[in-house]
Amino acid sequence: MAQSGSAQPRRIRLGMVGGGPGAFIGPVHRLAARMDDRYDFVAGAFSSDAERSRQAGILCHIDPARAYPTWQAMVEGERNRPDRIDAVAIVTPNNVHYGPAKAFLEAGVHVICDKPLTMTAAEATDLVQTVRRTGLVFGVTHTYAGYPMVRLAKAMVAAGDLGTIRVIQAEYAQSWLTETIETTGQKQAAWRTDPAQSGGGGCLGDIGTHAYHLAGYVSGLKAEAISAELSTFGEGRRLDDNVSMLLRYEGGARGMLWASQVAVGEINGMRLRVFGSKGGLAWQQEQPNELVFTRHGEPSRVITRGGAASGDSNIYVPRVPAGHPEGYLEAFGQLYADAAEQITAKWEGREPGPTARFLPTVEDGEAGMRFIEAAIASSQQGGKWLSPR
Amino acid sequence: MAQSGSAQPRRIRLGMVGGGPGAFIGPVHRLAARMDDRYDFVAGAFSSDAERSRQAGILCHIDPARAYPTWQAMVEGERNRPDRIDAVAIVTPNNVHYGPAKAFLEAGVHVICDKPLTMTAAEATDLVQTVRRTGLVFGVTHTYAGYPMVRLAKAMVAAGDLGTIRVIQAEYAQSWLTETIETTGQKQAAWRTDPAQSGGGGCLGDIGTHAYHLAGYVSGLKAEAISAELSTFGEGRRLDDNVSMLLRYEGGARGMLWASQVAVGEINGMRLRVFGSKGGLAWQQEQPNELVFTRHGEPSRVITRGGAASGDSNIYVPRVPAGHPEGYLEAFGQLYADAAEQITAKWEGREPGPTARFLPTVEDGEAGMRFIEAAIASSQQGGKWLSPR
Amino acid sequence: MAQSGSAQPRRIRLGMVGGGPGAFIGPVHRLAARMDDRYDFVAGAFSSDAERSRQAGILCHIDPARAYPTWQAMVEGERNRPDRIDAVAIVTPNNVHYGPAKAFLEAGVHVICDKPLTMTAAEATDLVQTVRRTGLVFGVTHTYAGYPMVRLAKAMVAAGDLGTIRVIQAEYAQSWLTETIETTGQKQAAWRTDPAQSGGGGCLGDIGTHAYHLAGYVSGLKAEAISAELSTFGEGRRLDDNVSMLLRYEGGARGMLWASQVAVGEINGMRLRVFGSKGGLAWQQEQPNELVFTRHGEPSRVITRGGAASGDSNIYVPRVPAGHPEGYLEAFGQLYADAAEQITAKWEGREPGPTARFLPTVEDGEAGMRFIEAAIASSQQGGKWLSPR
Amino acid sequence: MAQSGSAQPRRIRLGMVGGGPGAFIGPVHRLAARMDDRYDFVAGAFSSDAERSRQAGILCHIDPARAYPTWQAMVEGERNRPDRIDAVAIVTPNNVHYGPAKAFLEAGVHVICDKPLTMTAAEATDLVQTVRRTGLVFGVTHTYAGYPMVRLAKAMVAAGDLGTIRVIQAEYAQSWLTETIETTGQKQAAWRTDPAQSGGGGCLGDIGTHAYHLAGYVSGLKAEAISAELSTFGEGRRLDDNVSMLLRYEGGARGMLWASQVAVGEINGMRLRVFGSKGGLAWQQEQPNELVFTRHGEPSRVITRGGAASGDSNIYVPRVPAGHPEGYLEAFGQLYADAAEQITAKWEGREPGPTARFLPTVEDGEAGMRFIEAAIASSQQGGKWLSPR
Repeated sequence: MAQSGSAQPRRIRLGMVGGGPGAFIGPVHRLAARMDDRYDFVAGAFSSDAERSRQAGILCHIDPARAYPTWQAMVEGERNRPDRIDAVAIVTPNNVHYGPAKAFLEAGVHVICDKPLTMTAAEATDLVQTVRRTGLVFGVTHTYAGYPMVRLAKAMVAAGDLGTIRVIQAEYAQSWLTETIETTGQKQAAWRTDPAQSGGGGCLGDIGTHAYHLAGYVSGLKAEAISAELSTFGEGRRLDDNVSMLLRYEGGARGMLWASQVAVGEINGMRLRVFGSKGGLAWQQEQPNELVFTRHGEPSRVITRGGAASGDSNIYVPRVPAGHPEGYLEAFGQLYADAAEQITAKWEGREPGPTARFLPTVEDGEAGMRFIEAAIASSQQGGKWLSPR
Repeated sequence: MAQSGSAQPRRIRLGMVGGGPGAFIGPVHRLAARMDDRYDFVAGAFSSDAERSRQAGILCHIDPARAYPTWQAMVEGERNRPDRIDAVAIVTPNNVHYGPAKAFLEAGVHVICDKPLTMTAAEATDLVQTVRRTGLVFGVTHTYAGYPMVRLAKAMVAAGDLGTIRVIQAEYAQSWLTETIETTGQKQAAWRTDPAQSGGGGCLGDIGTHAYHLAGYVSGLKAEAISAELSTFGEGRRLDDNVSMLLRYEGGARGMLWASQVAVGEINGMRLRVFGSKGGLAWQQEQPNELVFTRHGEPSRVITRGGAASGDSNIYVPRVPAGHPEGYLEAFGQLYADAAEQITAKWEGREPGPTARFLPTVEDGEAGMRFIEAAIASSQQGGKWLSPR
Repeated sequence: MAQSGSAQPRRIRLGMVGGGPGAFIGPVHRLAARMDDRYDFVAGAFSSDAERSRQAGILCHIDPARAYPTWQAMVEGERNRPDRIDAVAIVTPNNVHYGPAKAFLEAGVHVICDKPLTMTAAEATDLVQTVRRTGLVFGVTHTYAGYPMVRLAKAMVAAGDLGTIRVIQAEYAQSWLTETIETTGQKQAAWRTDPAQSGGGGCLGDIGTHAYHLAGYVSGLKAEAISAELSTFGEGRRLDDNVSMLLRYEGGARGMLWASQVAVGEINGMRLRVFGSKGGLAWQQEQPNELVFTRHGEPSRVITRGGAASGDSNIYVPRVPAGHPEGYLEAFGQLYADAAEQITAKWEGREPGPTARFLPTVEDGEAGMRFIEAAIASSQQGGKWLSPR
Repeated sequence: MAQSGSAQPRRIRLGMVGGGPGAFIGPVHRLAARMDDRYDFVAGAFSSDAERSRQAGILCHIDPARAYPTWQAMVEGERNRPDRIDAVAIVTPNNVHYGPAKAFLEAGVHVICDKPLTMTAAEATDLVQTVRRTGLVFGVTHTYAGYPMVRLAKAMVAAGDLGTIRVIQAEYAQSWLTETIETTGQKQAAWRTDPAQSGGGGCLGDIGTHAYHLAGYVSGLKAEAISAELSTFGEGRRLDDNVSMLLRYEGGARGMLWASQVAVGEINGMRLRVFGSKGGLAWQQEQPNELVFTRHGEPSRVITRGGAASGDSNIYVPRVPAGHPEGYLEAFGQLYADAAEQITAKWEGREPGPTARFLPTVEDGEAGMRFIEAAIASSQQGGKWLSPR
């Protein structure tokens, strides 16, 4: 179901920074890129350990010459190849986002980058400016923005189905840091709780940013001020593992945001509810194929992906019929499809197809960094209301 | 399944203040009192309109001489009867709680009173002192404290099943004030949004207090400080209809509380989640017969009323087997059963049975008033952290 | 919220056969009768043990002279009292339904009787004829017919909201007889698995009849033929504990019915789904306040008791607002309210109010007995299609 | 996370029969094959229209010389290539399964085939024998066998966690054929309701076979006899659209199976419940990441994919952490991973990894055909009990 005519455009040549052995998100990116068959995966700097990078390259079936020992070597190595990569996925810990993102942009390579985007808002702003200057595609993997029902929610709010937005309740609750597993060699836990690799936000940066992005993405509203409290329950833990926040949105809407990694019983409980003067919406990531919509004074409707009133191919790439659940990987794949469409449209000198506009942008990444900094500052000042913009 | 031996004690003679024609909660109280057959309903001052009070008396099958035109007349009329009432239920708007509660206590009558308890914390404190002085039973109808699964949750926390409590998330969301129906003659809406009858809290007093009580009731923790934001979305509405709040509990636990009456799609969405170092609990009022409990590292368990691991008759009066859903009226009836048990035990000079200890107290009512006042003050001061105690 | 005008009619004087110490359903009947305050409970033959019957009378606060040692004594004792009972509830094991039902009808007493109605279809037919001859009220406690959402479902089908009915899927699954607890002194299990007390159907009679009634009640269709298989998994058990059945309904609809008491994980899982040419409905007893309705080509709607599109007071007695869950006892109470309304209407020479028509009838009880006999015969003949009418 | 050591084996060269423009399942197969990066998609006979086949080849980025006009041409064309396909996916309507399956097997090509396997049981038996003779891998895409929680259920039953199986309830309900859309040009509906393309079973073959397979797959039991009723509600429809069935399993277990394509409100409602003497399991396809397990006498546990007690990589290829929902495509991908593992293991002369044993076999396909024929015969004979073996 590719969005193309008689002559099939060539696939986008994709490289990767990070995602070597033991990583979680690197393989997810590669799978997502394969999903709709618009990428060829051809190069990588998978690990800061050269041998591990080489091994990863073999497992990925790539040319050994293109399994680089460092991302710097990869920038150099690819720059001069006739078949050089068109795009790069950056899937390293947060402290290794800015460097390669900047360098690849400067080398003329489109970028797909994990969040939080950088270590500081200033770095993020620099990337925004670089993207604007170079005109390249830059996507940020707020995966939840790839779910069809999230996009439908966004479209419904934009169409006025909820009236004026009044209240936004966002949460993202997990339990995996209930115990201090960062002290036991668990790799994810180790870097997520290490300020040197994650920056100033722990739970805040890892999942709080997702919830914040989702709330703004669906509601179409920007937060004007936040009052936050960051807490750390894991003994000796160096970053927050629980975040509570009040938000004031433009236009008078009020919000709350809770993110936690010590919420026993929650696995990956991301939920969003948006309430307006005429209607309300509820979505949760663990049952992503349903969107509950209520018009005031009517029974709630359960809209299902691909089913009645679920929108159409203007919001995503349909792959299977209604009732066949899609999940996280399909949402991730959708972001890659959106980026592919943006890149291909540039090649072809045309407007991208309609789904491509849903891809989270470098500006979204920058907003996430400002959110992190404002939340930390607010918490340090006892919940002082601060602007995250 | 009364908690008595061979000689059945007489039923408690019950009167009522409020609950006349058109009222919602008065009939609920009467039904709740009948449920376990421990009360005789014999007297009332049902309305400030004498004729309406008389009519209500007829409908309730009570002696016309005991359908009083005012609560003051009722205090006087009952005082001198040999068969005078043992207990009175006060089911009027908030501004008519303190007066009759105080007067009946002084007349030696046990009291069951709606919440919020009074119009001011000072009045509430006076009732606390009066109760202590008179030694009478005083129950406050935080109905949700009557649900078996809420009591089980409280018992499990107290038994240490969750470890040290870390996070408490409470919410109570409704939609019935989405539009300004108080201007259309809807009686409930009219008094609930009228500061003269409701006091300074709208949504805050009506349902925010329930959520606050439930969080403290189950967790066993007291809030040390709250940072609140009260909002009003109904145009021209005089009291808040949406409440957002951060809470700091004794011992370091953190909480959030949301109450709203403009949340389209929510009907009576009261939910509580409590997370500790070892386990987590989740309960919601609209499916009250289930309690989800998770031990860290194990699958979640769905405990059902009357089913495996659901506790026993030490927490409530079992009326039907597991799987036969109980609801709001049974919870309400449980509070009446608890009050009856406390009163009967006083008559018999014995300790009350174990379920009676779960009845919300006059101190709970006082805490609710302090919560209301602290929340209003915090919101007026831009979310300043204030103690609700 | 009684359905009366200025002069409140007197309460109905109610007696009971069965329901002594240790019984489950007797107290439920008494509570249900109290719920809407239209009955006075005044007499009983609670046990075949005279002393136990006397004790039960004390616990129920009734005149000791009216706590009879046998139901026969009760018929005689009440017959000549000026304040004799108006109605009797029969809550004994199945083998003690027909005798007292017949005798009280002949004595001019209205009857509310548990199901299955009798031990044989012939006895049931005799009761039908007796009811027709005497003109008395006779209600059968298919409790599920008291749930507002079941009544709404019935009304929606009758209104044509589903189009022509095509498929009816009914089930009632429990697990309480997974082990042979009838050998351990569990009283309920003992008589439910004893053919002498329960008749030829075990699970079939106890809960299969409920599912069968519900399917016909909501769909408005009569089964023309059934093909059944009865199984017994409990070792040494004398009656069926699992029932599987195909059904052919008038007009061409097809159905399935499953009833089980050995379904581990099911507590009281009664569910009904009805599908027509234009719409479908789904209801389950463990979440009785919701009815899911789907118009073909539209999203499913979740209709909640008291909420939007939930019908009105023409189908039940509203007691609490939407969102406050009602349960089994309220459904039971509704049947008592319906019977009370029918009785009172007779006294007053008027048509009963609209909700009263929803009370299951003696003809429903007779249909249940024919169903039991047809199912047993079909199973004995290897699933031969037989008429249950 | 490939199951290999230091030298990565080459990818499997995959071809496809069917799956041209407008097809639903062909793209799903291709995506599933890409998912874990163990296949190269290189050849196809996508349509019986040569030009459409050629176009589909372009869209799939395959060598134009390998986009064949017919499957017969594909057998011939591939046979002599040094880089000929290793495996073929057959994704045509049912009447074009047997021919290419047989021919490719004879040409030494592994086969992955849709179900129902053939048009007759005799053809299926011939394929079984051909597979046994050639020693090739043959997978049948009962997709639901690829869900991790289904595999866990199968493993738990096999481990005795449920005790002796007593009752198996399977259903698969959809609504898409509620109206006779086969007369409106809907391609899927047209061939699914055409006996010439689908064989004797409509709903029975399309989804009834899935439910039947799932029940046997998880329970590990074979049905000994079935009593079926096939119905057709769509006016003028030539095949069944609703199937009701009783089943007797080896060892005395009893089952029911319902499949429908006229069940308004159901989208893709496949559900399985298995009950044993010690425990019970419930799974539903629309929420595939959860498996509810109950030990008798304990609360139900909700086991989630990747979470506590969810088994391990011995049952599937973990791709994302717990709480990130997987869906239909991942299940499909798992079947492709299993086939890849079986094929690679043959190349390498080793035992396949442990997940590969979960792939549905040609014998499963044969059992499905016998099921179809037995169900049709049983229905024609008024529900006569017949063996499906």
